[in-house]
This record gives sequence, C-alpha cells and structure tokens, in this order.
Amino acid sequence: MSDEWLRTGIGHSDADSITLMGRDLASELMGNTTLTELAFLLVRRRPPTEHEARLLDAVLVSLADHGLTPIALSARLTYTGAPESLQGAIAAGLLGGGSVFLGVVEDTAAFLSGALERGESAADAVRGCIEGGRRVPGLGHPVHKVQDPRTPRIYAIAEETGQLGEHLRLLREVAAAHRSITRRELPVNGAGVAGAALADLGFPPALLRGFALLARTAGLLGHLAEEMERPIGMPLYREVDERAVYDPPTS
Amino acid sequence: MSDEWLRTGIGHSDADSITLMGRDLASELMGNTTLTELAFLLVRRRPPTEHEARLLDAVLVSLADHGLTPIALSARLTYTGAPESLQGAIAAGLLGGGSVFLGVVEDTAAFLSGALERGESAADAVRGCIEGGRRVPGLGHPVHKVQDPRTPRIYAIAEETGQLGEHLRLLREVAAAHRSITRRELPVNGAGVAGAALADLGFPPALLRGFALLARTAGLLGHLAEEMERPIGMPLYREVDERAVYDPPTS
Amino acid sequence: MSDEWLRTGIGHSDADSITLMGRDLASELMGNTTLTELAFLLVRRRPPTEHEARLLDAVLVSLADHGLTPIALSARLTYTGAPESLQGAIAAGLLGGGSVFLGVVEDTAAFLSGALERGESAADAVRGCIEGGRRVPGLGHPVHKVQDPRTPRIYAIAEETGQLGEHLRLLREVAAAHRSITRRELPVNGAGVAGAALADLGFPPALLRGFALLARTAGLLGHLAEEMERPIGMPLYREVDERAVYDPPTS
Amino acid sequence: MSDEWLRTGIGHSDADSITLMGRDLASELMGNTTLTELAFLLVRRRPPTEHEARLLDAVLVSLADHGLTPIALSARLTYTGAPESLQGAIAAGLLGGGSVFLGVVEDTAAFLSGALERGESAADAVRGCIEGGRRVPGLGHPVHKVQDPRTPRIYAIAEETGQLGEHLRLLREVAAAHRSITRRELPVNGAGVAGAALADLGFPPALLRGFALLARTAGLLGHLAEEMERPIGMPLYREVDERAVYDPPTS
Repeated sequence: MSDEWLRTGIGHSDADSITLMGRDLASELMGNTTLTELAFLLVRRRPPTEHEARLLDAVLVSLADHGLTPIALSARLTYTGAPESLQGAIAAGLLGGGSVFLGVVEDTAAFLSGALERGESAADAVRGCIEGGRRVPGLGHPVHKVQDPRTPRIYAIAEETGQLGEHLRLLREVAAAHRSITRRELPVNGAGVAGAALADLGFPPALLRGFALLARTAGLLGHLAEEMERPIGMPLYREVDERAVYDPPTS
Repeated sequence: MSDEWLRTGIGHSDADSITLMGRDLASELMGNTTLTELAFLLVRRRPPTEHEARLLDAVLVSLADHGLTPIALSARLTYTGAPESLQGAIAAGLLGGGSVFLGVVEDTAAFLSGALERGESAADAVRGCIEGGRRVPGLGHPVHKVQDPRTPRIYAIAEETGQLGEHLRLLREVAAAHRSITRRELPVNGAGVAGAALADLGFPPALLRGFALLARTAGLLGHLAEEMERPIGMPLYREVDERAVYDPPTS
Repeated sequence: MSDEWLRTGIGHSDADSITLMGRDLASELMGNTTLTELAFLLVRRRPPTEHEARLLDAVLVSLADHGLTPIALSARLTYTGAPESLQGAIAAGLLGGGSVFLGVVEDTAAFLSGALERGESAADAVRGCIEGGRRVPGLGHPVHKVQDPRTPRIYAIAEETGQLGEHLRLLREVAAAHRSITRRELPVNGAGVAGAALADLGFPPALLRGFALLARTAGLLGHLAEEMERPIGMPLYREVDERAVYDPPTS
Repeated sequence: MSDEWLRTGIGHSDADSITLMGRDLASELMGNTTLTELAFLLVRRRPPTEHEARLLDAVLVSLADHGLTPIALSARLTYTGAPESLQGAIAAGLLGGGSVFLGVVEDTAAFLSGALERGESAADAVRGCIEGGRRVPGLGHPVHKVQDPRTPRIYAIAEETGQLGEHLRLLREVAAAHRSITRRELPVNGAGVAGAALADLGFPPALLRGFALLARTAGLLGHLAEEMERPIGMPLYREVDERAVYDPPTS
C-alpha cells in the first residue's frame, strides 16, 4: 500500500533530537519562540516577523476572555461534574465557540475577502448586504454601542507595525460607507477587527476560528483556576434547580 | 438570594471599556502582552516577569507537538467527519490529553512537591518509589533513551533566567540519586522537566495539565491546517477499514 | 428578576418522588418503558405507540455502528490517552458525527420536507437538484452500489407497522424519478431512509442528528469494550508514527 | 507489518450486507432488537435475555435525566454558542458525566465487587469503610433522605425477572449493616442501585459509566429539544453576566 498520503511536515523525533517544522525543537525553537510565534509558524509554515507576532498577540489577547460567557460557564459546570478531567472542562468550553460567538470573526473575514476578490468597493459591498437583507458582518455590538475599545487599538498596532493590510483597510471603509448609506453609526466590533487582522496575517479562512479558540483556551485556564478556588458551577446549578418552574407536558 | 458566590476577578465590560484581571484590555494589555503572559496573569493573578515569561514560553513550545500522536489523529479524524466545526476537532484532540500522555507532567510535579513538603532528600524520595514498587515520575523515555533534548534546554533557560527553582533542582537530584541507587541511567524526560518548571512557576498542581493543553491547542492548529491541505483522516480510515480482520463473537 | 424563562417540562424531584415528562419515574416509567421509548417521549412530549417505537428502534439499530469509522477510531484513540475518562472518549467519538457522516440523515429529511411543503412532485424535486448542480440527498452509497440492505428493511417495518409516512413515500418516488430522469440506478441509502423515517416520526429537523448520535453512543460502548480488551489505538498510533514520511516546510 | 492487532468483532460490511456482532444487521437485528438490547449485545457479545433487557432498560430510564443539572446546563449553553453543531452540545453535556455525578455508579459497583471477591460480609465491608474514614458508596442522597424512589423499583424489577444478583443482594445487606452499626438510616441511592444492577448484568466495571452516559444522551435530546423552543442558555448567561460582582486581583 502506497503511503503517499501518510506525510506530515509538522514534527518528527528520533533518539537524540526532536524536529518541529523543520527546526530543531530544543536549540532553535525553545527559548527563542513564544507560543504565539509557534502557532504562526505551524499554520503559515514560516516564522512571523516581529511585527506580525506583535499584531497576532494583540488579536489573541483581545479574544481571550469575555467574562462569564456560555463558554466559561460550560467549562466551569463541566469541571463541577468531572474535576478529575481538566481536558474535559476545557473541551466543553471550546465547544461553545461556534457560529454565535466566534462566527463573526470568520464571517467578517469571508465578507471582506469576497469583496476584495470581486474588486468591489466598500459602498458596493455594503449595498450588497443591505439589498440581500443581511447585516454587514463586523459592525455593531450590543454593549459597545459607540465604540468597541478593541477596534482603535488593533488599528493603532497594525499601523505602528506596518501591518495594516487590505482586510483591515476595507473594513474601515465598510464602516464609513455603512454610515453614509444608512445614516446610522455602527462601530466596527472587536470580533470583526480580529477577523480582518487574522485575514491580513495570511491565515486560511477555515482556520481563523482556531486562533480564537487558542485565545479562549488561555481564558479558560483563568476561569478554571478561579473555579477551583471560588466555585460558581455548583451554586449556579443549585440556584437554577431551585428556581426553575416545572411545566410538564399535558399529553 | 445572596450572590456571595457569583463573583469573578477575571473580566468585566461596560459600554466604553473592557477590563481583564483589573487591567484595561485595550490600553494596558493589547499590544503589551503576549498570549503566554496573559495566561500567566490569568492563573497567577499577577503578570510574569520577563524571565518567568521566557521560561513559560520555552515549556509551552516544548509541549506543543509530538507528531502524529493519538491527540493529533483524533483531531484530524474528527475534522474528517465534521469539517464545519473546527471547535469539535480541537476539543476531540484535547480530550486525549489525559493520564497517559499528559499525566507525567502532573505526576512529576506532585511527586516533587510531596517530597519538598515532607523535607525528603532526593535519595529518600527515589527509595520511596522503589520500595512502593512505583516508577519514579519524570524519568525515562521510550525514544530518547540517553537524553531527552528538551531537558538540558529547559535547565539552561531556567539557569540563564534565574528561574531554577526547588522543583527543577530536586528533579535533577532525583535523576542522580536514581542512577546511584539503581546503577541504571534514566534521563529526565521532557514531560517531567516541564512539570517541574511549571511547578516552579507557581501554578497550582491541578492546573498544570491545562498549560500542556494550551500548548497542544497551538499544535492542533498546525495539524488541522495541514489536514485541510493534505488529508490523513480519510485515507487512514479507508486503510484501517480495508485491512481490519473481522472476528465476530461466536455466541 | 422575572423567571419566565427558567421553566422546564422535563424533570423535577422532591424528597419522595422523581417526575419525568409529567410521569412518576419509578412507578410509571421504570419497568414499563425502554430507553428508545423514553427518548421519543422526551422529544415528542408524548409516548410513542408500539408501532412508532418499533420503527424508531429499527432506525436506531441501523445507525448504531459502521465498523472502524473515524468516529470509532477517534473514540478509541482518545481512550488510549485518557482511559480514566470514558466520557471523554465517547464525546470525542460523537464530535466526528458532523456533516460528512451524519449530514445525510438531516439533508435527506430537509430535502423531503422542503418538497412536501412546496407541494413538489418527486420528479420536480429531482430536477431541481439536477438543475442546481446538487446531488439528490439520500441516494447512492460508495459500498452498497446496488442496494443498501437497510433500506428495504426500514420500508418493510414501516409498512408492517402502518408507519409509512409522507417522507418515506416521497423518498421512494424520488429514487424512481431519479432513475427515469438520469437512466442511472442509485439506491436509497441507509442514512437517507433513516432521515425520512425520523422525519415521519415527527421529530424536529434540527434534532434528527441527535437520534443518530444516540445510536452511535451505543455503538461506541461496543468499541470501547473491545478497545479495553484488544487495543487498536496504541498500535495504530505506533504504526502511523513509524510509517509517516516527514516532509518539513522549506522556509 | 503484521496486522494481528487490527481486528474487530463489532462490524463489517460488503456490497450486499452489513454484519454487526456476527449477525446480519438488516434481517436479524433491525426490527427484532431495541437499542438497549443492541448495547447489551455490543458489550457482552451475546444478546440479553428478555429479563436482562427489562432490567437494563429500567436502569437506563432511571439514569436518563435529573433536571437542570450541570450536564444539561452545559449542553444547553453550548447549543447557545454553536447551534449548528448538535454533536458539540451533546458532547459538552456528557463531559460533565465524571466522578462527581456518575462516579457513584462505578464506585458502588467497585466496592461491592471488591467485597465479593474478598468474601467479606456486608458488616465487614461497612466497617472497612468506617475505619478507613470513607463513606459507604451508594448510601445516602441529598434530596431523597428517607428513600430514593428508584431503589425499591429496581429491586422489584430485579426480583420479578429473576435478576437479583450478588451485587444487588450485597448492597441491600450493606444498607442494613450500616444502619445497625451506625444507628443512622441512609437509604440506598439511585446511582448506587444502578451500579449494582449493571454489575449484576455482567458489564465490565470500567464500562458502567458508559451505560449512564448512554442514558444521559437520551436525556440530553430532551433538553436540546426544549432549548430549541424555550431557550434557557442565553437568558441564563445574561442574568449571570449582569449579577456577577467584579472582584479583580489587586496585584
């Protein structure tokens, strides 16, 4: 049986050495590379420049935590039932990282990439959404109604580091076009700006969510560390169980 | 109902700002903090020094990937069946991060912490294992029989950065004591040295596995990026299905 | 704060009794109800007739296992790494139950329901697929090229029990229409017939996959019982690791 | 390479037939076997008797749901974030099925099996726990303080069906011995009696939790069906987020 398919470029080890992405793990990567830089290298198959790494870290830090979200609550409740299995609690948390909470990151990147490929102007892209009855991805936030504080910061870091790419540029134009077309002010939200920045960093669209999940894994370590000291899972369950009204089917 | 239990120190947001660990996310953390530093801050509730961050990154980089392990294979096979749900593939991979592959990290830290608490010498700790019929955690590796290349690198970085703490020191003495007691040379393995370094960094024992899982999440991004371009999941399934001998029960 | 939202019709208990779906668990359900009947009751909010239960069991049995699929392999590989956490192995297996392997169940049901709602004939529904460049969901199978053995059996049980509903009827007409339009013989596959039967049983479209997952959970118990006695996970990993060609990036 | 390890007794298919546990899926199993009977066959490698199936169904029904537990809440919160991925919601729920909520099932079975292997009397087994400072597994319940309604029902069904085996017998004696030794009345709880019954049904100890997880999967279908119509996940998150007191670290 041919093993043409059984190839990997990621890693390899023998008795004396471990190789990762074609580099000696111990002498070349350990001590010289942050986890963020390694994640970039693993996906892009080349190391990031210092500027790329700085922008990527800023994006990851912006996505790491949003308080007691369903993702954090699910991880904590899972820890309540299976404290022996930290991997289960983290996995349960990440499983909530789907279309509702992390989808905007990908949707914004896909929207911008599509417009760029078709050579559309920001105004045309916005009109396309409005005519199709769709929201413009990456605009608006239920809490940060005037400005999402992450947005100007990502733009500032991207400019400082010379990383203001075509997705970030177009997203800013999209927000302006939306404002002049609709006369409504909708700020670029943090998930949208993260999606545009990740697309500018050259990651494949289907993997953008993965960077958000990596960032959330760090956030979940914080929640689980706190849960070990001050549990929310068990009292939350107790309260819900006590307050819930029982409303059985009649058939 | 009192909300004494419903408290969190992690994050909070209002219309204009997002706070994480008591710091303004946009102005204080984004652009100034790596994901690794943020993970430290979330768990230890204080930022790492530059030296601590460097050691932690070295440990995370050492743990991020080990090739086509069960963890990577499970993530890839899950992606084969559910490519629409990247979070499911990452979660499935992390779920294999249990006692067999990641347990050594925690077991070594627990063994060293126990000996330190009891004030045992390295020789006594080793004798305790031998007399109890237990292996000494953190020693020996099926592939790296003479030296695990990660071990001297972590020690070198810990020494360089002044982070050679009591767990790392004791682990080195344990390996020496084991050698003189048993006349067998067993190197300190990469998981063991990682466990000792994470314990020296002050993380709670029950969370050490979480740092290995964070590192593996980065590794899984690499595997899933590769799986998208050169799939292993589907041909692996096809080959297994074809080669498997069917051996039904007789009752 | 109003608790209008915190209501459940599922279960409730007090010091002396446990109620499930408005029935006394101990006296009414235990001993009188199979797990399959309970699953029907939980979703449809009424107990199944004997005939409905028989059809549902036949569908679940047909979906429970398909050998060493990615789902089974992922569960076994996860068990290899985390044998202390059976829930992790089962969860990792189920996570592969996405669009590729279980999607056909839902896609077929959605295709049939759509045609029924629009009052389309089978021929029109088939032509709609062909003109749109889409495959007709539920037809064709890579192994069972002439006939999928599950299909006539589900139809026979549905007829015997008077449960041949509009989705199953239409699916049969769709296969015939496809044959006369394309002059190609494509059998109704097992996933398609399961989707049509589950739709006829009145389950909401978004939950159909859940019944396939329930069936697979039973299948996974078999795989994990076997894995405990005759492990495949570890030798599979060893072989893959040994055979894999390392092909690192050049940058 | 020898394929001695690549064997399975579970399933196999070719162009015309599908075989499961040595039986023709379509003609022998579908229509003649419930999902519960199939799960028994997959694990025990023989079909259950009618009496065994009845006891197993009673146990599964008793374990399927316990209201808005952490397991149900975690599944619902995961559905809130990733409604496109039902498998993720079910997996997240099952991941909470660890030592705290499902452990009693296994612990009771292990405690009883150990005593039976050592030929201990119920009184000796209870004294062993008391002297070791351990609770007797399977006794006591926070809500059902006088009697857990599931317990007499399982005993009644086991007696009716001639399935009252040595684990169930010993558990009853253990409760009596505990009462006379401690002068405290602690009822046998539902998880304990389930564990004893599953052990009497001959399942391997490491798989007992798997039957509880199979039952819970049915329960989760009910919760997710309800969540689709009357969501709890999103309003629960909103309330928690609003009520949570922010208590940041001071360093």
